[in-house]
Amino acid sequence: MVKVAIIGVGTVGESVAKILETNKELICARAGKEIVVTKGVVKNLSKKRNVKIPLTDDINEVLNDDSIDIVVELMGGVDDALKVVKTALTNKKAVVTANKALLAYHRYDLQAIAKELPIGYEASVAGGIPIINALKVGLSANQIMSIKGIMNGTCNYMLSKMMSEGVQYEAILKESQELGYAEADPAFDVGGFDAAHKLLILASIAYGIDAKPEDILIEGIEDINSDDMEFAKEFGYCIKLLAIAKKSDKNVELRVHPVLIKDTQMIAKIDGVMNGISVIGDFVGETLYYGPGAGGDATASAVVSDIMEIVRAGQSSPMLGFKKPHESQILKLLPIDEIESEYYLRMSVIDKPGVLADIAKILANHDISIDRILQKPNSFKNQAKLLCSTHTCKEKQIKNAIKEIEKLSTLKDKVSMIRIED
Amino acid sequence: MVKVAIIGVGTVGESVAKILETNKELICARAGKEIVVTKGVVKNLSKKRNVKIPLTDDINEVLNDDSIDIVVELMGGVDDALKVVKTALTNKKAVVTANKALLAYHRYDLQAIAKELPIGYEASVAGGIPIINALKVGLSANQIMSIKGIMNGTCNYMLSKMMSEGVQYEAILKESQELGYAEADPAFDVGGFDAAHKLLILASIAYGIDAKPEDILIEGIEDINSDDMEFAKEFGYCIKLLAIAKKSDKNVELRVHPVLIKDTQMIAKIDGVMNGISVIGDFVGETLYYGPGAGGDATASAVVSDIMEIVRAGQSSPMLGFKKPHESQILKLLPIDEIESEYYLRMSVIDKPGVLADIAKILANHDISIDRILQKPNSFKNQAKLLCSTHTCKEKQIKNAIKEIEKLSTLKDKVSMIRIED
Repeated sequence: MVKVAIIGVGTVGESVAKILETNKELICARAGKEIVVTKGVVKNLSKKRNVKIPLTDDINEVLNDDSIDIVVELMGGVDDALKVVKTALTNKKAVVTANKALLAYHRYDLQAIAKELPIGYEASVAGGIPIINALKVGLSANQIMSIKGIMNGTCNYMLSKMMSEGVQYEAILKESQELGYAEADPAFDVGGFDAAHKLLILASIAYGIDAKPEDILIEGIEDINSDDMEFAKEFGYCIKLLAIAKKSDKNVELRVHPVLIKDTQMIAKIDGVMNGISVIGDFVGETLYYGPGAGGDATASAVVSDIMEIVRAGQSSPMLGFKKPHESQILKLLPIDEIESEYYLRMSVIDKPGVLADIAKILANHDISIDRILQKPNSFKNQAKLLCSTHTCKEKQIKNAIKEIEKLSTLKDKVSMIRIED
Repeated sequence: MVKVAIIGVGTVGESVAKILETNKELICARAGKEIVVTKGVVKNLSKKRNVKIPLTDDINEVLNDDSIDIVVELMGGVDDALKVVKTALTNKKAVVTANKALLAYHRYDLQAIAKELPIGYEASVAGGIPIINALKVGLSANQIMSIKGIMNGTCNYMLSKMMSEGVQYEAILKESQELGYAEADPAFDVGGFDAAHKLLILASIAYGIDAKPEDILIEGIEDINSDDMEFAKEFGYCIKLLAIAKKSDKNVELRVHPVLIKDTQMIAKIDGVMNGISVIGDFVGETLYYGPGAGGDATASAVVSDIMEIVRAGQSSPMLGFKKPHESQILKLLPIDEIESEYYLRMSVIDKPGVLADIAKILANHDISIDRILQKPNSFKNQAKLLCSTHTCKEKQIKNAIKEIEKLSTLKDKVSMIRIED
């Protein structure tokens, strides 16, 4: 019998206990051993929880209990969770965690401490989709050329609705909050930070790269409006928040931001709260993984699969995918300014002769060539909206051009920019 | 150093050697050991092959060579491959195979012989998509409620083209053969047998069920025509060849046939030669896996990932997903007649009063209620096409009704039937 303790018995913790109970015999037949949750640790014992397991508010009852084989960390947060996981590992317990923030900052610290002790974290990225395992095992023969993921259900729900129903950002945010898809403080989701944490975890497995959230380009969906959606539709695009990792010769680019992406691409077809991750390997080509990226049961499904894997095989593959250092592990993070993309710009301008010429001249001066233009009247008199897309240029070029455009007296507002993903 | 031999150096075998050579350092860093192909076995040594590995036409040079750790079986066929794999296992070699036919018939025999020796077969189902691993590991906490797969690229290419371009079956088959997507003798693909082999393999992992191709319902796409496509479009459906496994209380249904499926479903969006498998688990909900189901490099990517997994962990999870017997392993195969579905019927009838009444009466007599009807003139004078769909009934009901309808003198041709998948 394998004994498991759950630290943090919230929605996911309750589901973990429920799955291990409901599918007990099936899980035993597949894992080879009975798996039992013997303790749950909670902050507040007086709050009612929907589990049968014995609860305690003393974490040391778990960390110092030699009978417990696997600690499931579901408490969230970074610093306290790090202490708990470190202690569990020091006390020779295997660890399963769904804590993406912890891993975004401390995955290499934990790998160093764990050594041969297993750490499972399938649940930390894209909930119920077994993408960690796909990268660590299924695609392991490949150089990963790129990862493009819709890894935040809140953003995807909002953008899907804005696209299909033409509603504005503020209205759909309110609706999402009422439906429970968005938090009261939505910044972590809509600002792209949640997706960035997940991207960093996947990038370690693909490239062995140790980057922190602060190191990479992160932009949210807050500035997207119905004009952008209209431009997208006009030219066969969708707008998605993508987390992107791309390998070039010596560099890896990591970035999270909204993109215009052709609606014929498989990942563009993922709507609503669902998640999806497209991975391109040098030999396998594109594979894509789709499913629920959040929710108690889906996330717990991944947690329990990690527990079962540990019971069957211990640490069957190295925590972060690499058994020993390799050239690909010394790939450098591409500086943000060096990232290349096509860009879409939205500008509110005073509708008078010469405005377009001024803007076109600035873009030309920065060696940026225009691909498409759509001009339409604004709701304000004598103003127009100018929507345009560019051919490929570097991030620093477009940023400098935008700075200059924003100095024009004919510009009524800041320039809004979205990257176009090929 | 781990030594590998490849038996059968065709397109996939060449790619296996190529990947292990091209990504040598990366693979070593991930697997922890150097992996080298030391021998390839071919039937005809005089045929030129695009590999650097030493070739032989004597299979015993591999099977009796104690230095070889892993045998990769890519020779195809059933009986000879079975002998080879058995001998390899008897001689204590791990085996990796892409041979779906071998597994469709002998997976439980091989499991019994292998015992703790690893057998990897990720490449046998859906080429480069790591679906075997997803079922064995990632989704292992779940009762698998259903598997629905587009697992034959030839059929999906043909059906996608028929749907998008309105071409007829014979024309698109010819085009597929010219493009190399269909074999000169296409029966194995278009008849559904290839997909059935793959389905049986997945069903073992999900349900522990030992069924053979002869035991299950297999129908191909040969009878589908542009009228069916038109009906599908009219009512928001796509037509796909699906391999379906579904669990009910005590039974599993396994079947391969064309279906009408709502075009809003994720799996309906998979077009062209690509494969995709939707799996519903009782806790995780729906996850879907998409990618290239065939091709040398994609298939070899799966073969090499199996080799690496064996090098890292040996047999980290039981070959067919279960460590010991379980109630779910004594699920019975649902007899074909008991399968329930909605049905679509296409009938060519003489255009005169009473025809529809006769057909409707027969359906009513078999307790089958009609959902939708579309009637349109035929290209022949005085004939009409009657396209209709039914509510849910059993396979035996619809078959008996069809038999009776076909006896009507007003019917000009056999009734064509397609199941509707919800």
